[in-house]
Amino acid sequence: MATAANSVTHPTLIQVDPFVPALQQKGLHNRWHPDIPPFATVKPGEARVFNIECVDWTGAQIGNNDFSDDIRDVDLTSVHNLSGPIAVEGAEPGDCLVVDILDVKPFDKMPWGYTGIFELENGGGLFAQEFQSRAAKAIWDFEGVYATSRHIPGVRFAGVSHPGLIGTAPSHELLATWNKREVGLIEAHADAVPPVAYGPLVTGANVGQDLPDDVRQKIYREGARTIPGREHGGNCDVMCHVFPRGSRCYFPVFVKGANLSVGDLHFSQGDLSFCGAIEMAGIIKFKTSIIKGGVEKFALKQPIFLPSPVDPLYSAKLIFEGISVDIHGNGKQYNMDATVAYKQAALNAIAYLQKVCINEYLLLSAAPVESHVGAIVDSPNACVTLALPLGIFEHDILPKEEGLRKLNFGQCAIRSDGIL
Amino acid sequence: MATAANSVTHPTLIQVDPFVPALQQKGLHNRWHPDIPPFATVKPGEARVFNIECVDWTGAQIGNNDFSDDIRDVDLTSVHNLSGPIAVEGAEPGDCLVVDILDVKPFDKMPWGYTGIFELENGGGLFAQEFQSRAAKAIWDFEGVYATSRHIPGVRFAGVSHPGLIGTAPSHELLATWNKREVGLIEAHADAVPPVAYGPLVTGANVGQDLPDDVRQKIYREGARTIPGREHGGNCDVMCHVFPRGSRCYFPVFVKGANLSVGDLHFSQGDLSFCGAIEMAGIIKFKTSIIKGGVEKFALKQPIFLPSPVDPLYSAKLIFEGISVDIHGNGKQYNMDATVAYKQAALNAIAYLQKVCINEYLLLSAAPVESHVGAIVDSPNACVTLALPLGIFEHDILPKEEGLRKLNFGQCAIRSDGIL
Amino acid sequence: MATAANSVTHPTLIQVDPFVPALQQKGLHNRWHPDIPPFATVKPGEARVFNIECVDWTGAQIGNNDFSDDIRDVDLTSVHNLSGPIAVEGAEPGDCLVVDILDVKPFDKMPWGYTGIFELENGGGLFAQEFQSRAAKAIWDFEGVYATSRHIPGVRFAGVSHPGLIGTAPSHELLATWNKREVGLIEAHADAVPPVAYGPLVTGANVGQDLPDDVRQKIYREGARTIPGREHGGNCDVMCHVFPRGSRCYFPVFVKGANLSVGDLHFSQGDLSFCGAIEMAGIIKFKTSIIKGGVEKFALKQPIFLPSPVDPLYSAKLIFEGISVDIHGNGKQYNMDATVAYKQAALNAIAYLQKVCINEYLLLSAAPVESHVGAIVDSPNACVTLALPLGIFEHDILPKEEGLRKLNFGQCAIRSDGIL
Amino acid sequence: MATAANSVTHPTLIQVDPFVPALQQKGLHNRWHPDIPPFATVKPGEARVFNIECVDWTGAQIGNNDFSDDIRDVDLTSVHNLSGPIAVEGAEPGDCLVVDILDVKPFDKMPWGYTGIFELENGGGLFAQEFQSRAAKAIWDFEGVYATSRHIPGVRFAGVSHPGLIGTAPSHELLATWNKREVGLIEAHADAVPPVAYGPLVTGANVGQDLPDDVRQKIYREGARTIPGREHGGNCDVMCHVFPRGSRCYFPVFVKGANLSVGDLHFSQGDLSFCGAIEMAGIIKFKTSIIKGGVEKFALKQPIFLPSPVDPLYSAKLIFEGISVDIHGNGKQYNMDATVAYKQAALNAIAYLQKVCINEYLLLSAAPVESHVGAIVDSPNACVTLALPLGIFEHDILPKEEGLRKLNFGQCAIRSDGIL
Repeated sequence: MATAANSVTHPTLIQVDPFVPALQQKGLHNRWHPDIPPFATVKPGEARVFNIECVDWTGAQIGNNDFSDDIRDVDLTSVHNLSGPIAVEGAEPGDCLVVDILDVKPFDKMPWGYTGIFELENGGGLFAQEFQSRAAKAIWDFEGVYATSRHIPGVRFAGVSHPGLIGTAPSHELLATWNKREVGLIEAHADAVPPVAYGPLVTGANVGQDLPDDVRQKIYREGARTIPGREHGGNCDVMCHVFPRGSRCYFPVFVKGANLSVGDLHFSQGDLSFCGAIEMAGIIKFKTSIIKGGVEKFALKQPIFLPSPVDPLYSAKLIFEGISVDIHGNGKQYNMDATVAYKQAALNAIAYLQKVCINEYLLLSAAPVESHVGAIVDSPNACVTLALPLGIFEHDILPKEEGLRKLNFGQCAIRSDGIL
Repeated sequence: MATAANSVTHPTLIQVDPFVPALQQKGLHNRWHPDIPPFATVKPGEARVFNIECVDWTGAQIGNNDFSDDIRDVDLTSVHNLSGPIAVEGAEPGDCLVVDILDVKPFDKMPWGYTGIFELENGGGLFAQEFQSRAAKAIWDFEGVYATSRHIPGVRFAGVSHPGLIGTAPSHELLATWNKREVGLIEAHADAVPPVAYGPLVTGANVGQDLPDDVRQKIYREGARTIPGREHGGNCDVMCHVFPRGSRCYFPVFVKGANLSVGDLHFSQGDLSFCGAIEMAGIIKFKTSIIKGGVEKFALKQPIFLPSPVDPLYSAKLIFEGISVDIHGNGKQYNMDATVAYKQAALNAIAYLQKVCINEYLLLSAAPVESHVGAIVDSPNACVTLALPLGIFEHDILPKEEGLRKLNFGQCAIRSDGIL
Repeated sequence: MATAANSVTHPTLIQVDPFVPALQQKGLHNRWHPDIPPFATVKPGEARVFNIECVDWTGAQIGNNDFSDDIRDVDLTSVHNLSGPIAVEGAEPGDCLVVDILDVKPFDKMPWGYTGIFELENGGGLFAQEFQSRAAKAIWDFEGVYATSRHIPGVRFAGVSHPGLIGTAPSHELLATWNKREVGLIEAHADAVPPVAYGPLVTGANVGQDLPDDVRQKIYREGARTIPGREHGGNCDVMCHVFPRGSRCYFPVFVKGANLSVGDLHFSQGDLSFCGAIEMAGIIKFKTSIIKGGVEKFALKQPIFLPSPVDPLYSAKLIFEGISVDIHGNGKQYNMDATVAYKQAALNAIAYLQKVCINEYLLLSAAPVESHVGAIVDSPNACVTLALPLGIFEHDILPKEEGLRKLNFGQCAIRSDGIL
Repeated sequence: MATAANSVTHPTLIQVDPFVPALQQKGLHNRWHPDIPPFATVKPGEARVFNIECVDWTGAQIGNNDFSDDIRDVDLTSVHNLSGPIAVEGAEPGDCLVVDILDVKPFDKMPWGYTGIFELENGGGLFAQEFQSRAAKAIWDFEGVYATSRHIPGVRFAGVSHPGLIGTAPSHELLATWNKREVGLIEAHADAVPPVAYGPLVTGANVGQDLPDDVRQKIYREGARTIPGREHGGNCDVMCHVFPRGSRCYFPVFVKGANLSVGDLHFSQGDLSFCGAIEMAGIIKFKTSIIKGGVEKFALKQPIFLPSPVDPLYSAKLIFEGISVDIHGNGKQYNMDATVAYKQAALNAIAYLQKVCINEYLLLSAAPVESHVGAIVDSPNACVTLALPLGIFEHDILPKEEGLRKLNFGQCAIRSDGIL
């Protein structure tokens, strides 16, 4: 008969509490550095499948309520809080670390997440300057495979749950490359608001372990911020359709043990995100293996991915396009600039959605939209499309002879001082 | 019983011969200008469904052979050759023209197409400078829904046939806007090779109709080139997944009658194209209707699209990513530049494919790859992915313990002087 | 440049006229018999890709009009009219004939088809007895990838075009087996209306070629009717999702040359068909090859199939179920009878659709519905589901708090004497 | 900040232990009867989303080991063990109970399940008589979205997790109808092995609550067995593609409160099942609502379903067909019998799979195969197809020139006395 004795469960290699600030817990770090020792180790033959628990990316800074003050005041010096590093015994530089993302789910005790829009001065975001962004927030309730929001009524969609941030540790050499090129960029755009990049920062840095002071200080001084994605993976906000639960990832290994870290779980995110996604705390289930010499075998400059067969399928879509001309602003012509085209496509979608719903800005950050970039050969206009799945809306939003009907849906969470 | 008498066929409003140079045929034009009169008219109640025949974009300049000299020497002053304009009676500026793309197919007498790589000095392309491109070509045979190529053996894929270029005529005002902003860009990059944009050009211009000399000369002098996509649609190389046969398009109308033009048919094209696609001549089947005042009703700054339910489904994919750092070159850090990220993703894919097949550069221009652009918020690295469908390969190209195996496949069409 | 000289077109091995009665044309036969000689031959190395033209299954008996008298009076002794046989040089009994169905399309001159409901006494159908069927008909207009009908307004769907009937010729031995088992069944149900099966029938038989009288008479006397599917393929009304254009089929070979025949083209058909499908005349494009000894290699008792990647994708569906109890009639309990369960699922769907549209019976015969049969292990109730794609309806047919709304849509084609 | 105080979790209305025999736990019943009182109640406005825990269908009889004796000796008088009934306040006969199946997952402490083949004399199954079945078993390990088995190596597939059994309580009248028709069938086939149906049975009956003796005895005497699906839903082995997590179900209500029961969770099951599925214990997450008068509004004779957008997508398949002739046995011709056709398709698939893997019989019971039933109009041969997803195999199983290669994979769990 079925008994506990004949049931081997999956060990949880890192345990955290989503309601406790990250700095008060072990096993959470927020900088990339080869000198952060493994917090947990996967041995060959053991722990075939294992769980890693993750706080939300801010480390419990954001609450389930109807004001956005926590977003406005979020401490960004201490993000993202990552669980790890996890060493995989036997991995050596030049190998390929194969990671199966078997599952991603919220904690039972925290069945909600959030999408936030940062203040222009603290975090910014895609349209921070255009819209002079003020903090806003939508809380999402997780109902099994679906998310709904009291702040964005009228939509419900199946999550494409995935880790927002996952990567192997850089070597000293690679870290030095990162710091050099990014600090160079920062210096070249010294006055940008928000800044163009974020260099190493001692304030807020955390290694999640008891380390000798000099080691810790070195990591604080040199450790790369977690904001951008890089050659090792890292922050992969683009990856929503790439590594939802069920996916396989091939990472290049730069240090002994690979030293994988993961965090910033998302319940859902589309290809479009003005700030974030549907952020959540939760549990990720992994299986790992190693392909010796994989970097050379597969010409692996960056991770590659096999997507999951369980990506939600919304076949009916409405598609917007954008070109590299600022048609929503001053009409400026850019030269093959896919970033501009992407923003124009987003603004076209926003203009349309303003006729059918509210909080379209938050919705587009969270929903499983798809954005394709086309062949960038039609000088001077790069062209990017943005596809909005129709199945997430409770009402019909298609173009109609009689025009579009806007439903009055209420209000998202805003600053307690009412400033929009 | 079934008889010809009880069968109403679909009229062909514009007829062309794919083997005759475009300049020798009527109904083909290659500039955008409001003064080009309609060559055909769709009346309400009649011609509910109609066909338009199109030459290939070059107007029969490219042959089915094993040399790429025709690509090297292609006359780009006279492209793209578009069929039209087609007036839709009743359409007025501010309306929305609804166009159903019911079918797109090659001529029975020309069941082939081509993918070309331009010379750096004549046409260029995405990697023209990086690779110092020399002309190359692959011929594709159309076998019903599939394309195969003697120049790229080992792959076969279902086409996502679509018009590469479709749009309504601009108003005088809109045309002036285009010319102003593009000429400005050209002047700011006067020395670029290939040029950053192409202004109006009398040489090679064609209106496809007998017009008074002064009208024709005005069109030649002012007419916008067809190379980039713009607010009216136009060249939409990105649109492969957007408007294959079965799609519905909503175009803004800028002139009386809308004056739709179409051409540059593609048998297939992915989100990645170094130069073109699988170019073909062929027949497109349309149905049109009008939504009065649709520009205002739908906030229509550019066309929007409902994609087709018959887009081929390749669910298994291998995904590459790229960031806005030139990791394939000098290591330069860019600021949130999706174009750079897109190119890096492409180069990562090329590096991988060089281990499994040949002519990967031409293959990636033709195959139904998908490229997603992610949330451009993770400063400073924009992140773009490129997904390669596995089902198009006859052999398994997945990462393996034993590495990848390269098959020797022969040679694509190159210059007759052997210069690569 | 592109010229006719460098364009090799696909030969048409059998040519027919869809407006001429089948008996007046060559290359059309309507019985399965090994002694019908090949009408066309595919030689290895030649005719890599070739076309076969087909009349509609009745051979032009049904017209595009608003009365169903032609359905009522259809001559069923002479159906199905198949194009062939086509010999593939080199194929021997025991081999596997690989057939790529590259394309299936209507004649340009006949862009329409029909769905019919037979009279109880002439043709019958799934519910002939339950509904005491009288002839009815819907004409469908083909608009590229879509079909619409003036007789069933409010729906439009993408076709899954396929041959309704395709198979290799039986050997003498296999033919004898068929005749023996089927005649046995007929004799055991001598009084059934409509009959349970159809034995060889001289009346109406046709071989489509000039053959010696004795050969022809032997074929007439022994030739198997084309109505059911059998070990060689044959009538495969179930196969709509199995071999649309783009599919690959593996047929067992029973006679030298394989002697493939094809006909009864369908623009679309779902898993549910009370009588037929959307019947059409048209052109099918094939490519063939041979795997020697394939019957043994693949344990090939019947054909197997690789479906197409271009099957239309309607992801949103409403699903009905049926069990093997006659809950729409006398409540009789059947023992694991999937046929009864299938009919009950269909009747559940009909009851629902009667609340939202008209001519639901014809619609269900033509639309791309899917019917799954489940694990037949839950004694005594087999359970079958029927999934109706929501995307084919112009209006929302989902269950709603306020109930369903029925649109008044008119009338399908009925008998000219008005008898329903 | 995020705290437990601002996190409202989903209540668990019924709690069970998967390692404790069902008879020793409350809230589990194994007969359908209107007099079983609600074990839990959902009040409007409360418990919007709630969990129900379920034992495996046998109630912990089957262990994670390498012998099948537990399958051989399974007590079938006490199955299926269902959690419930759950009353939904406000539901009245004639209403429609809307049930969202938000999630279905195994217990963390029991990450495995099983597929079993019954003995001919105890349980039987689809091919019990053909194969003179002896008990066999495969254990499946759940690794997040995937299942793998040490007993069937070489395959891995994403689960389509769903409740195998879910339904509302019958009214007294409906129950009487069931018993009458089923007992009639049993009496007509008194000697069948295994039996054709299972009437009420006092032995093994369980109501899971403390009830007065007379009430309990009445339920034992009259309660319908849970084996077949019926008008209220019930055992829905066919429903694997119909209500995986993310689906919405519309049930007819027959008694006050609806009295929903659920159990027999499956990690995965295809349309084909010789005995069961991948059976598991686990937790199901529901949301419920009521549509007043829905039975009449939607012509609801049986439940209807909206499937989930998160059904795994395996687009590449190999398809087998079967007709209603016993071509794997005595060649007998049946009359439009979809059950026979279904079994022939399964035997065709088995014959093929025997050339490429082992334990194909257990594999086909568990894998996400699809079985379509076609138009049952081609007298006398019903035709059914069975589609095997290629993506679940680690090696290529497609037909090849050189034939198929069988890998030696070991052995499934068999009886400890070695009898096969």
